[in-house]
Amino acid sequence: MDNVVSDSHPGYTDNREAHLKRLRRIEGQVRGLQRMVESDTYCIDVLTQISAATKALQSVALGLLDDHLGHCVAHAVQHGGPEADEKVREASAAIARLVRS
Amino acid sequence: MDNVVSDSHPGYTDNREAHLKRLRRIEGQVRGLQRMVESDTYCIDVLTQISAATKALQSVALGLLDDHLGHCVAHAVQHGGPEADEKVREASAAIARLVRS
Amino acid sequence: MDNVVSDSHPGYTDNREAHLKRLRRIEGQVRGLQRMVESDTYCIDVLTQISAATKALQSVALGLLDDHLGHCVAHAVQHGGPEADEKVREASAAIARLVRS
Amino acid sequence: MDNVVSDSHPGYTDNREAHLKRLRRIEGQVRGLQRMVESDTYCIDVLTQISAATKALQSVALGLLDDHLGHCVAHAVQHGGPEADEKVREASAAIARLVRS
Repeated sequence: MDNVVSDSHPGYTDNREAHLKRLRRIEGQVRGLQRMVESDTYCIDVLTQISAATKALQSVALGLLDDHLGHCVAHAVQHGGPEADEKVREASAAIARLVRS
Repeated sequence: MDNVVSDSHPGYTDNREAHLKRLRRIEGQVRGLQRMVESDTYCIDVLTQISAATKALQSVALGLLDDHLGHCVAHAVQHGGPEADEKVREASAAIARLVRS
Repeated sequence: MDNVVSDSHPGYTDNREAHLKRLRRIEGQVRGLQRMVESDTYCIDVLTQISAATKALQSVALGLLDDHLGHCVAHAVQHGGPEADEKVREASAAIARLVRS
Repeated sequence: MDNVVSDSHPGYTDNREAHLKRLRRIEGQVRGLQRMVESDTYCIDVLTQISAATKALQSVALGLLDDHLGHCVAHAVQHGGPEADEKVREASAAIARLVRS
């Protein structure tokens, strides 16, 4: 782990701009969905766009999670103790929410 | 089917305002996600919000799909012919994209 | 709809053998997973196989759903009345369970 | 990490019996699905059982992943070096496959 950050920054700090850029694009997709519904776009075409926005959100989540495992969780594991177990449990719970959402 | 709409309107016309309201709330969630990332919110809390936004998007999709089956697909099936088969196939493909996204 | 079956058969009757063949293959995959766990296979390789089995189960579900929409639901819609609405609602609920599982 | 196992055992060794028990139950569910299809069970009821089996498979995957993060990945991170980064990347890829399946 060559990039372990201090505890005061989340693991995604190095990739923050990339995550923000993707979230802004998703905001644009959601606004586009509103325009589609307002202008009576055919249901199936709206659904296709919703699937695209959902996948884009999941990609941001997977990116954040990768940063989190490689930084916050790795950091805690290197320090050991009960906090390490706690961080792994917390990450597993977040993964479960993603898999089930 | 007491609500079959004319071909010129999508199946979600009756519920358009409800769908729009939910999409505006999702837009707000995605903007909230940007603020979270900008202000270094803890990764796990960002992930929890992404799971919530993903579920909200899926709920809009399921609502639109229900409208679509009850209106556009039902309409086509009542008229019969190759268009009925085509509408069912098209709906199935949209469902597959949702399940896999 | 050229293949509307009588009420006494489910919509997947024509494709029953294909569905069964896929379910038997999935049973084999799940037995293979047991052997992998028994023989201490590396976690990531077990996870890859679980993802494959999950996708295979979803494919069977999507196939059954397509049959169901094209037969049972189409049949009910052609007959109209409250049963048509009921069938659409029931199919939408099943789709929601699939999307969320 | 009080349970770091030696490199020669996968992270799920302590929970192997629990994972096997669940996989055997899933095998039973898949055989039950075959009987349902053979005996012309109503489509929607088959779909409900498929959703249950899919969720059960995902639960096994999430359990294995939790074991993997707490053992194999933690073990690699404690040792540091390129293998640590590699293990995190590999775990992230497995999570992505689960989220998308």
